[in-house]
Amino acid sequence: MPLYRAPVEDFRFLFHELLELEKHRDLPGFADLSPELIDDILANAGKFCEEVLQPLNQSGDEEGCHFENGTVRTPKGFKEAYKAYSEAGWGGLGAPESAGGAGMPPILTMAVSEMGMSANQSLAMYPMLTAGAYGALLATGPDWMKQHIVPKMVSGEWAGTMALTEPGCGTDLRLMKTKAVEQPDGTYKMNGTKIFISGGDQDLTDNIIHMVIAKIPDENGQIHDDLATVNFFMVPKFIVKGDGTVAAKNGVNVGGIEHKMGIKGQATCVLNFDDAIAWRLGPKPVPPKPGEKRSTSAGMAGMFGMMNQARLGVGVQGIGIGEVAYQNGYAYAHERRVGRALTGPKEPDKPADLEIVHPDVKRMLLQARSATEGLRALAAWTTLNSSIARSSRPEAESAALLEDLMTPIIKSFGTDMGFEAANLGMQCYGGHGYIRDNGVEQFVRDSRINQVYEGANGVQAMDLVGRKLGRKGGAAPMALFALLAGWIAENEKDQAMQPFVTGVKRGTEALQAATMWLAANGLKNPNDAGAGASDYLRLMGITMLALMWGKMAKVSLGKDGKLHKDKLMCARYWMERMVPECPMLLERVQAGSSSIMELD
Amino acid sequence: MPLYRAPVEDFRFLFHELLELEKHRDLPGFADLSPELIDDILANAGKFCEEVLQPLNQSGDEEGCHFENGTVRTPKGFKEAYKAYSEAGWGGLGAPESAGGAGMPPILTMAVSEMGMSANQSLAMYPMLTAGAYGALLATGPDWMKQHIVPKMVSGEWAGTMALTEPGCGTDLRLMKTKAVEQPDGTYKMNGTKIFISGGDQDLTDNIIHMVIAKIPDENGQIHDDLATVNFFMVPKFIVKGDGTVAAKNGVNVGGIEHKMGIKGQATCVLNFDDAIAWRLGPKPVPPKPGEKRSTSAGMAGMFGMMNQARLGVGVQGIGIGEVAYQNGYAYAHERRVGRALTGPKEPDKPADLEIVHPDVKRMLLQARSATEGLRALAAWTTLNSSIARSSRPEAESAALLEDLMTPIIKSFGTDMGFEAANLGMQCYGGHGYIRDNGVEQFVRDSRINQVYEGANGVQAMDLVGRKLGRKGGAAPMALFALLAGWIAENEKDQAMQPFVTGVKRGTEALQAATMWLAANGLKNPNDAGAGASDYLRLMGITMLALMWGKMAKVSLGKDGKLHKDKLMCARYWMERMVPECPMLLERVQAGSSSIMELD
Repeated sequence: MPLYRAPVEDFRFLFHELLELEKHRDLPGFADLSPELIDDILANAGKFCEEVLQPLNQSGDEEGCHFENGTVRTPKGFKEAYKAYSEAGWGGLGAPESAGGAGMPPILTMAVSEMGMSANQSLAMYPMLTAGAYGALLATGPDWMKQHIVPKMVSGEWAGTMALTEPGCGTDLRLMKTKAVEQPDGTYKMNGTKIFISGGDQDLTDNIIHMVIAKIPDENGQIHDDLATVNFFMVPKFIVKGDGTVAAKNGVNVGGIEHKMGIKGQATCVLNFDDAIAWRLGPKPVPPKPGEKRSTSAGMAGMFGMMNQARLGVGVQGIGIGEVAYQNGYAYAHERRVGRALTGPKEPDKPADLEIVHPDVKRMLLQARSATEGLRALAAWTTLNSSIARSSRPEAESAALLEDLMTPIIKSFGTDMGFEAANLGMQCYGGHGYIRDNGVEQFVRDSRINQVYEGANGVQAMDLVGRKLGRKGGAAPMALFALLAGWIAENEKDQAMQPFVTGVKRGTEALQAATMWLAANGLKNPNDAGAGASDYLRLMGITMLALMWGKMAKVSLGKDGKLHKDKLMCARYWMERMVPECPMLLERVQAGSSSIMELD
Repeated sequence: MPLYRAPVEDFRFLFHELLELEKHRDLPGFADLSPELIDDILANAGKFCEEVLQPLNQSGDEEGCHFENGTVRTPKGFKEAYKAYSEAGWGGLGAPESAGGAGMPPILTMAVSEMGMSANQSLAMYPMLTAGAYGALLATGPDWMKQHIVPKMVSGEWAGTMALTEPGCGTDLRLMKTKAVEQPDGTYKMNGTKIFISGGDQDLTDNIIHMVIAKIPDENGQIHDDLATVNFFMVPKFIVKGDGTVAAKNGVNVGGIEHKMGIKGQATCVLNFDDAIAWRLGPKPVPPKPGEKRSTSAGMAGMFGMMNQARLGVGVQGIGIGEVAYQNGYAYAHERRVGRALTGPKEPDKPADLEIVHPDVKRMLLQARSATEGLRALAAWTTLNSSIARSSRPEAESAALLEDLMTPIIKSFGTDMGFEAANLGMQCYGGHGYIRDNGVEQFVRDSRINQVYEGANGVQAMDLVGRKLGRKGGAAPMALFALLAGWIAENEKDQAMQPFVTGVKRGTEALQAATMWLAANGLKNPNDAGAGASDYLRLMGITMLALMWGKMAKVSLGKDGKLHKDKLMCARYWMERMVPECPMLLERVQAGSSSIMELD
């Protein structure tokens, strides 16, 4: 069975040394966050993931979910593990104390979430989706939901889902067919089919709160290709009354579960809404005046907030799988013997040296590790920015811009590198990696979904280039370049920092040139922007990880101990082997779209 | 169910226009190879793969192989399809007419093999392994085997395997434990365990001829960590006597079949040799004189020949999966509607445009296609070189060097790009790609094995850098650089060829610099060569595909029709988007091993 050791020491390094959370006690939710509390949470969450979630990962994959008599049964052991997770309070870690949660800031829930994803992505997704759903209710729901529904979700008694996708409608919400018709009592009657609903049904909780988007038809009952008709709804599996009492089963029926490549312990459901009672979230949409365009439903902000959190969460899934795949590849390379070190036998008394002596094996492991640890730093830094953005600090606005800009990077680059790390971990096993019993091929299959759901990675690139770069007159890239220039200026006189400053500079220059090129050409020919979007996203990802490695090198220089030496090793690796991609990616962006658009 | 259309037109382009096989009728086996015969074979093989093999691909994956009462049962339909394959003569296409084959040269068997791998890798591997085994018997077996065993394999009545790997021994043959002890009648008694034996057992044929390597113990019955004690053996499932009669079952027992990530219709077996009767191949090894080293068994040449063919064959598996994944991604992008073209709606009367309008989708498809078609050209060109190498032409020697040099490139770069193409094809499906019913995730799982078996890709890189570059005073890279320089000189005055010549030049310059760097540093510090081996291999792969695309562009320029225009489009794509990797890969090679070797 694969192993997993929670990277508690790395999180401690990030939180105490790199981000110095102790200096951020002014941020919302950070007041009680003493270093001891952080360490305590990390250690306990790590232990829980190692001991309770991870032992069910391979068996859950093997057994999968069952769809019987219209309901879902999760794999053996999931129910007990989920109960233990809830009872330990992990599901409510980030929820406000008023709702029964621990009130911890997102930087801690992110750490706990990553460890859960390493240990058992299928299982850890159930509470992750629940947290996303109660977050949306807290943001947009009426008081009775906050009072009677949210606490049940925080405690884990009830779960939540995001129900957005339909058979003919993924990215392009205009194509949605599910409709919700207002009833005299102010609720809505919902009809339609949603697919790919993670945790859409299960046997872990007494009730499930579905967060659904649907169109409100016009006065003739027709739905339109108009995004402004899309609204955000709360649709419980069992109807919940305003006083919190639970009534009959709602018209939400499970049409089936998907037979998937991976995350087989996670029930991916088809949900049929058959006259389901639904509650619209947010203020009631105002019908447009004649000649005016309908404005977007205010409740949709809750959906977008939930979706952005989910995108960051999926990026963290990539990091989590990257970590566990690295650990197993590393362990195998220290067990398996093959060949001799190129410079002469390391253990002449043994029939062969360990696989780890081979430079190509070390290269694979360092590629996986420097990406994973670099992305963990980027995710932590971005999550800290999200708290700064919600504070009254003067830098709140630029922190919000950076959080917004980094969301597609963490989702897309995070899951691409996570999938690569899964493959590298498996590659260390040679032919044995392909055998299911060894458990590493599961990481490849599980992590592959992270690149396609929650907005396929190409969609993230389009979002980055088509929306985020230009928004507010380019404020986000300007904030980013100011940050990069500031860091370079701060460190370029430091002799010991030279290799790292050079790397960050090189990435920054390529990224700036690519940004200028897109600004100059993307408006003239939008296909030029589209053709370079994925390469641009990767360029920003590599550059941001260069910055993270530069920052981590700075706090590691001159310190003793394995962790700091390893940080310097990874930082050098990133500058030497990944930063050289930057000019190449710039060249690809600048190649434009002419040869690409020829494909019919 | 996924679709597959055999790329007959592309093979016709390669054989008639690019390689002009009509001018090679002097080569061994080419005399009867008229253009009509080539077209006839391609069309019939393509039809067979589309109609007989491909419909069983998804069902074979779903059902898998069964291990019951000590024997293997293949998935439903495999037996009938295998019989039809054999009866149509595809299994003996490349075998000499004297053995009942069609005597076609390897360039045709390669084409038929690729189509089989696209259609159904699991099923097509059974005859591929048989052809490898009878090829080895033809090369090293005694007359009675050529007379009584080979024809049964050519007809498909019997199958063959390669039984090399052991539980503790993959790449490093010194660690092998299986031993074979000579008996008074000149046969050997073999004991040991082999694992990962593809087609190690099945219900398709009456007998299976295992090609096995094992150590011959010394006079005290001890085996040694000495490669020269390894010999090559023929071990039938049912004993075959010298007169061809089949006797009792041999001591070869199936220990089980592996539960794998993919190629589930292919039985990957554990074989236990329990006093199995084995026939050593090749002349009897001469015991070393006192003080001398034992020399390698002459029969091992047959094993190496079989292994090199298998490596090329695995590269072709990568190409085959790349092709079918591309076709399905392309088809899906022409069915699914999402969003609008960035330059304005293409089909304003439809609710959304087709997915193919998006530049990032075209980019993914062109990446898969230019790699797949480029690799197909490289494999065909290399296979033609293998025939030239076996001819009496003056260029036979340099053709042999190029074939040898390209073997790790086609295996490793071919399967890396095949896996990438499988992922890109799947990515075009968005979230739907992850669903097993859609059949594209199978390409990802199936093609993943191509990177790890038959020498993991990192092992190929070590073989390239550690052995093939330096052999015979660097004759192989010298032949390659002469070829590249010749092509550049021949085309650089042609205005229309400029973009392609520039690309080939850029790749060549980086490859030359990397080769010089490895020559200068690899001896001083072998870890420097090891650390850069994988990047060097990729650099050579990209450069060789630039050459292939340059050659394909040349024969396509000025010609009408979709095929030639598409070739020019792919050639431009390769030069614009893949060749820019070359200087980056050079930089990675030159980064050396110092940061990498720090990982403990």
